[in-house]
Amino acid sequence: MKKLLCLIAVIPALSFAQKDDSIFIRKLANEILVNGTAYENLRHLTKNIGGRLAGSPQMTMAENWGAAVLKQVGADTVIMQPCMVPHWVRGGTDKASITSVNSKRTRRPLDVVALGNTIGTGKKGVTAQVIAISSFDELERRKDEVKGKIVFYNAAFNPANVRPFTSYSEMSAYRTRGASRAAKYGAVATIVRSMSEGTNNHPHTGSNNYNDSFPKIPAIAIGLEDADHLWNVCKSNANVQVSVTTHGYFLPDAQAYNVIGELKGSGKDVTYLTVGGHLDSWDNCEGAHDDGAGIVQTMEILRAFKALGYKPKNTIRFVLFANEENGLRGGNKYAEEAKAKNEKHVFALESDAGGFTPRGFGFTIDAEKLRKIQPWVALLKPYGVYELSSGGGGADIGPLNRAFGTPLAGLQPDPQRYFDLHHARNDVFEAVNKRELLLGAINMAALVYLVDKHGL
Amino acid sequence: MKKLLCLIAVIPALSFAQKDDSIFIRKLANEILVNGTAYENLRHLTKNIGGRLAGSPQMTMAENWGAAVLKQVGADTVIMQPCMVPHWVRGGTDKASITSVNSKRTRRPLDVVALGNTIGTGKKGVTAQVIAISSFDELERRKDEVKGKIVFYNAAFNPANVRPFTSYSEMSAYRTRGASRAAKYGAVATIVRSMSEGTNNHPHTGSNNYNDSFPKIPAIAIGLEDADHLWNVCKSNANVQVSVTTHGYFLPDAQAYNVIGELKGSGKDVTYLTVGGHLDSWDNCEGAHDDGAGIVQTMEILRAFKALGYKPKNTIRFVLFANEENGLRGGNKYAEEAKAKNEKHVFALESDAGGFTPRGFGFTIDAEKLRKIQPWVALLKPYGVYELSSGGGGADIGPLNRAFGTPLAGLQPDPQRYFDLHHARNDVFEAVNKRELLLGAINMAALVYLVDKHGL
Repeated sequence: MKKLLCLIAVIPALSFAQKDDSIFIRKLANEILVNGTAYENLRHLTKNIGGRLAGSPQMTMAENWGAAVLKQVGADTVIMQPCMVPHWVRGGTDKASITSVNSKRTRRPLDVVALGNTIGTGKKGVTAQVIAISSFDELERRKDEVKGKIVFYNAAFNPANVRPFTSYSEMSAYRTRGASRAAKYGAVATIVRSMSEGTNNHPHTGSNNYNDSFPKIPAIAIGLEDADHLWNVCKSNANVQVSVTTHGYFLPDAQAYNVIGELKGSGKDVTYLTVGGHLDSWDNCEGAHDDGAGIVQTMEILRAFKALGYKPKNTIRFVLFANEENGLRGGNKYAEEAKAKNEKHVFALESDAGGFTPRGFGFTIDAEKLRKIQPWVALLKPYGVYELSSGGGGADIGPLNRAFGTPLAGLQPDPQRYFDLHHARNDVFEAVNKRELLLGAINMAALVYLVDKHGL
Repeated sequence: MKKLLCLIAVIPALSFAQKDDSIFIRKLANEILVNGTAYENLRHLTKNIGGRLAGSPQMTMAENWGAAVLKQVGADTVIMQPCMVPHWVRGGTDKASITSVNSKRTRRPLDVVALGNTIGTGKKGVTAQVIAISSFDELERRKDEVKGKIVFYNAAFNPANVRPFTSYSEMSAYRTRGASRAAKYGAVATIVRSMSEGTNNHPHTGSNNYNDSFPKIPAIAIGLEDADHLWNVCKSNANVQVSVTTHGYFLPDAQAYNVIGELKGSGKDVTYLTVGGHLDSWDNCEGAHDDGAGIVQTMEILRAFKALGYKPKNTIRFVLFANEENGLRGGNKYAEEAKAKNEKHVFALESDAGGFTPRGFGFTIDAEKLRKIQPWVALLKPYGVYELSSGGGGADIGPLNRAFGTPLAGLQPDPQRYFDLHHARNDVFEAVNKRELLLGAINMAALVYLVDKHGL
C-alpha cells in the first residue's frame, strides 16, 4: 500500500455533557502514547526477571520490582498484602518420545511440557502403550482398554469458532481434569493436545487439577504438529509406546504478596475502585501477554493519572495479584481482607487477556446499568474500544463480585493471537506491540476515570 | 489467564429480512475457517516466490502462479490483461556509514535501504557532510547551507496519533519528494528517517518520485535507531560525514499482466464487481502483509463462493493487480480497458492495508448510500467488522472510481502493527496470523455477497 487512505471514521456522536470527558480522555491518551513507560516496564519484567511462578525466587523479585515501580510512578501508599501461595516446582526438563511402534524400537522425540501441579515420573520415567482418544465420551466408551496405558487426548480447537476463547472453554477440561479422569480407569500418564490452534509446535502448559479420589499420574501437553503425528501413528499402528519423564513436585506453601498501590480518594466515605492484573506467570515463558501486559498497563494508568494531576473521588487501588495461574490465592485473599475490613468496593477492572489491540470491555453488572453506560462507547471508540458487552471481568476480581456484588469489567483485546502463545515459550516480550499495549492502557484509564467520576 | 470468561457479545439485532444473509455469511465463514487455503497460498507466494517487484522474474513467477491458483479454485475464465510496467532494479546491496566526525575518521555502519526508483551513486559512492533537518520548513530556512551536502530528514511519526495511517500521510512526503526538494538546493544525496514507529532498526523502502526539474540524486532510508543516533551525532558535532552507496537503475518498461479470474454473473446485463489486491511487492521483503494478504484473500473469496455453489448476479472479477508499488500501472490499465470496452462497474473492493484482524471497511460512496447499508454491520460484527465508514478504497481501484464513479471500499484491518513492517525486511509470512488473515477474507466475501445480492 502506497497511496494514502483518507480515513474519516463515523464516530458515534458525543453529547454536550460528554465534552469534558472527551477532553480529559484525549489528555490521558496523549500522556500515555507520548510518555508511556509501560513498554519499557514490560521489557524489564520479562527480560530481567522472566517467568515467575508463585513461590519462585523470580516471583519475589517481581513483587519487589512492582512495589518500587508503583512508588516511583506516584502511589500515595504501597501495601504488601501477605498471601500464602502454592509452590509447585517443575524440577527439570520434561521429556517424551515415541519409543516403539508395533514392537519395533524407535526414538522420535516429542516437544512437550508437564502441566502445572503435576507429579514427577521418577528418574526412569513412565513407558507404556498409548491409547489415543478424541473426547471424554470416547474415554468412557473405551474405559476397559485404559488400564496401564498412557491416555492421549487429541481434542482440537474447533476452527469454525470465531472467538478463540470459546474453543478454549470447550477444550480446557482435557487439560484441567483429563489426568484424574484417565487415572480413574487405571491410566499411568496422560498426554494432552495443547490448548492452541497456533501454526507451530510449541507445547502449552497450564493447570492440571487432580481429583483426590483417584491416583495422581503424570500429565504433559504436546505441541500441535507432534499431536497430529502421534495421532496418525496411533491410528495406523496397533501398539505405540511412548516414554514420558517429568520432575514436578510441591514444596510447602510459600509467602507471597498482592502488591497494592493506592491513589487516595477525595470522597467523604472511603470507597474503593480496583484495577489490576496478575504478577505471576508460568515458568516456561516470559509471561509477557499473560499477564505482564496487565501489570504494566495497571502501572501506566497510575502514572498517567499522577502526571495529569487527577484527583479521584474513590480510592483507586492498583493491584498486582499474587497467584492467578495455579491457585487464585491472590484474588481470594484480596476479597477476604476486603470482607474482613468491611470495605466498600464500587468497581473492579482486570486486564488478563493479553496486550493486544483493544476492542471492548466485558462487564459483570446488571443489564440496566450496562444499558446506561452505552454512551461511553462514543468516548472510547477513538481509541479502539467499540463495545461494552455483557459477560466478563477476570479471575482475580471474581471473588470481589462474589463477596460484595461489586460490578466487574475485563479488557477485551483482540483475541485471535492469544492462544498461539498462551502458556507457551513464545509468550515473550517481542510478541507484544508497544502501541497495542498502550492503547489497552488508555482505554482502561478512560474507563476507570468514567466510573470514578460518574459511578455505575 | 486461566479461568474462562463468559463472553456474550451485544450483537446488533438482525432484522427478519437479514436472516437468510446471516445464514449464508455463516456458511462462508465456516467454509473459510475450516477449509481455507489462503494461509498456505500465502506461504507459497512469500517463501517459494518471495519479493516480486514489477519487472522482476519473481513477478512473472507470481503471475503464472496466480493464474494457476485462480483456475484451480474455480474461476470460469482467467484473463491475463497485458500492462507495461516500470522496471527498476536495486542493483546491489545499499550501504551507508558515518565515515568521519569533526574530521576524525570513524566507520559506523548504518542500516539502510535505497528508496525505490532512485539512481545509483556509482561505485565510489557519495561521501559528503550531513545536514540534519526535521522538516521541509527547516529545509527552506537553511537552503543556503544545503549545497554539496547530504540532507538527512529526521521527521518522526507523531506518537499521539492513534491511527498510524495519519502519521504516514503526514510524513511520507519526506520519502516521496524529499530527494528532489533537496536537489533543488544542490544536495548530493538524501537520507530519510523510515516511515515507521516500530521498535527495531529495520529500514523501510518505498517510492521516491523525482521531480524532473531538478537533478536526480541518490536517496536512502535509515532505520529508526540509526536515525536517532545520526541525529544526535549531527546535533553535537559541527562536521559529520556520511558515505552512501546505491546501485539503482531503470531498464526499459517490462511486459506484465493484471491477472483476472472471473465468476460469471447470471444477470441479463453484464455488470462487474471487482475484488482485488496487488501482486507486486518491494524487493527487500516477502511482501506478506503488503500485499500478499490481499492477494490470497481475493483467491479465498472465489474458492469459498465456488465451494458453496454461489451464483452471483454480477460478474465478479478477482483481480491480482500488476504494479501498485512503483507506478500504479496495473490499476490504471484495468480502468482504461474497462473504459475502452464501456464496461459497467458497480462496485470495487480492495484489501491493501495488511492481513491483520479486520475492524471495518472504508467507503468512497455517497453519504446516503453509506447510511443505507449501515444495517449490514449487524451481519459482519460476529466476524470482527463493526464499522462501515466514509473514506477509503484502495490505490488500484481508485482509477475505476475516477473513470465511472464506481463505489469503492477498502478492508480496514487493525492498523497498529502495519508500519512496523511496511516495505521492510520483516514483512514476512511469519508476521501474518492465519486466523486474522482468514477473518479478513470472510468479511470481504460477506461484503461482496451483500453488494452482489442487494446492490448499493
